[in-house]
Amino acid sequence: MANYFSSDFKLGILGGGQLGKMLLYETRKFDIATHVLDPSAEAPSKIACNYFEQGDLMDYDTVYNFGQQVDVLTFEIESVNVDALAALEAEGKKVYPSSKTLQNIQDKGVQKQFYKAHKIPTSPFRVFESKNELNEAIVRKEIEYPFVWKSCTGGYDGKGVSIIKDAEAIIPLPSGACIAEKLIPFKNELAVIVARNVSGEVATYPVVEMEFHPEANQVEYVICPARIDENVSEKAREVAKKVSNAFEHVGLLAVELFQTKDDEILVNEVAPRPHNSGHYSIEASYTNQFEQHLRAILDLPLGNTDSKVGGIMVNLVGAEGHTGNVDYKNIENILKLEGVTPHIYGKKQTRPFRKMGHVTIVNKDIAKARQIAEKVKKTIEVISK
Amino acid sequence: MANYFSSDFKLGILGGGQLGKMLLYETRKFDIATHVLDPSAEAPSKIACNYFEQGDLMDYDTVYNFGQQVDVLTFEIESVNVDALAALEAEGKKVYPSSKTLQNIQDKGVQKQFYKAHKIPTSPFRVFESKNELNEAIVRKEIEYPFVWKSCTGGYDGKGVSIIKDAEAIIPLPSGACIAEKLIPFKNELAVIVARNVSGEVATYPVVEMEFHPEANQVEYVICPARIDENVSEKAREVAKKVSNAFEHVGLLAVELFQTKDDEILVNEVAPRPHNSGHYSIEASYTNQFEQHLRAILDLPLGNTDSKVGGIMVNLVGAEGHTGNVDYKNIENILKLEGVTPHIYGKKQTRPFRKMGHVTIVNKDIAKARQIAEKVKKTIEVISK
Repeated sequence: MANYFSSDFKLGILGGGQLGKMLLYETRKFDIATHVLDPSAEAPSKIACNYFEQGDLMDYDTVYNFGQQVDVLTFEIESVNVDALAALEAEGKKVYPSSKTLQNIQDKGVQKQFYKAHKIPTSPFRVFESKNELNEAIVRKEIEYPFVWKSCTGGYDGKGVSIIKDAEAIIPLPSGACIAEKLIPFKNELAVIVARNVSGEVATYPVVEMEFHPEANQVEYVICPARIDENVSEKAREVAKKVSNAFEHVGLLAVELFQTKDDEILVNEVAPRPHNSGHYSIEASYTNQFEQHLRAILDLPLGNTDSKVGGIMVNLVGAEGHTGNVDYKNIENILKLEGVTPHIYGKKQTRPFRKMGHVTIVNKDIAKARQIAEKVKKTIEVISK
Repeated sequence: MANYFSSDFKLGILGGGQLGKMLLYETRKFDIATHVLDPSAEAPSKIACNYFEQGDLMDYDTVYNFGQQVDVLTFEIESVNVDALAALEAEGKKVYPSSKTLQNIQDKGVQKQFYKAHKIPTSPFRVFESKNELNEAIVRKEIEYPFVWKSCTGGYDGKGVSIIKDAEAIIPLPSGACIAEKLIPFKNELAVIVARNVSGEVATYPVVEMEFHPEANQVEYVICPARIDENVSEKAREVAKKVSNAFEHVGLLAVELFQTKDDEILVNEVAPRPHNSGHYSIEASYTNQFEQHLRAILDLPLGNTDSKVGGIMVNLVGAEGHTGNVDYKNIENILKLEGVTPHIYGKKQTRPFRKMGHVTIVNKDIAKARQIAEKVKKTIEVISK
């Protein structure tokens, strides 16, 4: 096995946001040397890596040259130049997840077609090259209101997704390629993180349950374990495993799922990286998702995905009406609550709904954790000074 | 309350070894800006702090000038210039633990006299200005073999301590000030970490049990909770609290204890900082010792000191007969074992008995954890390439 620990080995990470920052806790723990590429001079991962480079993740040459300097290349964000990854792979560079996996995920139209091709349950959909095509289909009554509109590219944290109830709602949509999905009435939004290492060893994390913020369409609470029947949870883990095997991904794959009214499990979308729905694992799991991602891409044995205790995550997003230097109001009061751990990402500027951090609440009793999580939510405020 | 999170606040840390490195995981988690001073250009804490300065921790001007740049000053090693700390305090700088606490601890003779003055149970002892004085006392039969010799200063990881059985054993001892302690036959060596914040809030961690390496006199296993009677454990926590209050320390105080044959609790020595005996807390406790140290010195509410699961720590020390570039042989095999987390400190060079890292083994069943810990110990080897 390659020697990664306190050695000359170099891991490259494309993207230096909060996911990269938390991944660096694990590379530091194992003393694995890291290079990070990010467009921002104030990237949360700028310190704690061994070498930081400021550059455009979508620029072919920047990504290609960065990749040349490292032994294994990974990413914490999907918006990276996939052609550069392919070129590096062609030269024998190890890139995990692979450019092929990323290609099948980056474009939501391609991703949906991939599910269809692999007989993975997902909501009915149609892909359109442009907003005009979509409008024509609506005129021809091929698409009926309400439906879910998703931009094929660039969607993130609820951006690029909206529920279209009438013609009015179409007007503000961008003109680019998009998909129209059948609006599925569901009981729960669930997620399962699947880890798959280079040798093909697979492990799934427990099913988590997500509660979304009504306006911002951002996850507000992630609850592990999900409060669902065991058979539903087993089905969800099976579907997630099927998705993982179809993509043959290496690393982590976060699979977002719908539990329909009749307990069907449908795949919503996936992210080939550590995911917001797995942040609870830092405090609650035997092996947190960031260490697991490292184990997977370095072909180390996967760790135990079970939980030590119940875990709930609350996102810390910028309060509405506040833009400027951030102030975490009442943070000292949530530190008084039992089993509460705030994670502050290090973004100096807040703006409405910007992901500024998260708080994990752990407790042997998940119902107790849920109560404390609500207190946390009511107490702390992410405002500007 | 001062705003520490993503603000202009600066925490200064004297010492950049593994304790500092692990403390930086927590300052990163809270996005608290840090300055680190360490004599080595290859200090484990060199990255992940916001500003690193290479300098002598015992040099007055170096420490004084470093302290001027920060808002709160702490340390991860006792061998720092205490006069510089006192001067900074005199100017209103916050230094935690205080220079007074450190003065009472740095010199083991002073530390033992402090226990005596405060009626804290400890083994009988005598302090000698020099080896000559000790020899005279032996000639006068005031000291009888066997006894425990401890250098008053510079002792660390078993250095500066030896059990003296006869005149022969005296010869190699250094000439400086020392103490002679009665050799106490004990059942167990225990430790309790006490956290005390600026406002005087106090919390004790569960009692841990230490197993030492026979030759190196370094901790080999730290077991939490200690496998002792509840009443002994309560007594140990009470004694530790008494020590904490006597020192009026702020931060963490690791109190090493002897459990005598008749279940008396005697204080061996203390360390006013995060401690090897608390490393298990990273994986096992609701609040790990490094986060707790931050909470204490920043006068934040203390976190829950209970454990989520049982924890055992194995030190990774350099194998005998190996000096040079380190290789963690079979580390991939211990990663296969359940609940195993290696921590690699990042020292590139190994030498016999050098602390290179540690491994934590967590399990709901402490007996199971102990079995796995033994496997870990037998499997991994810290050798040179």
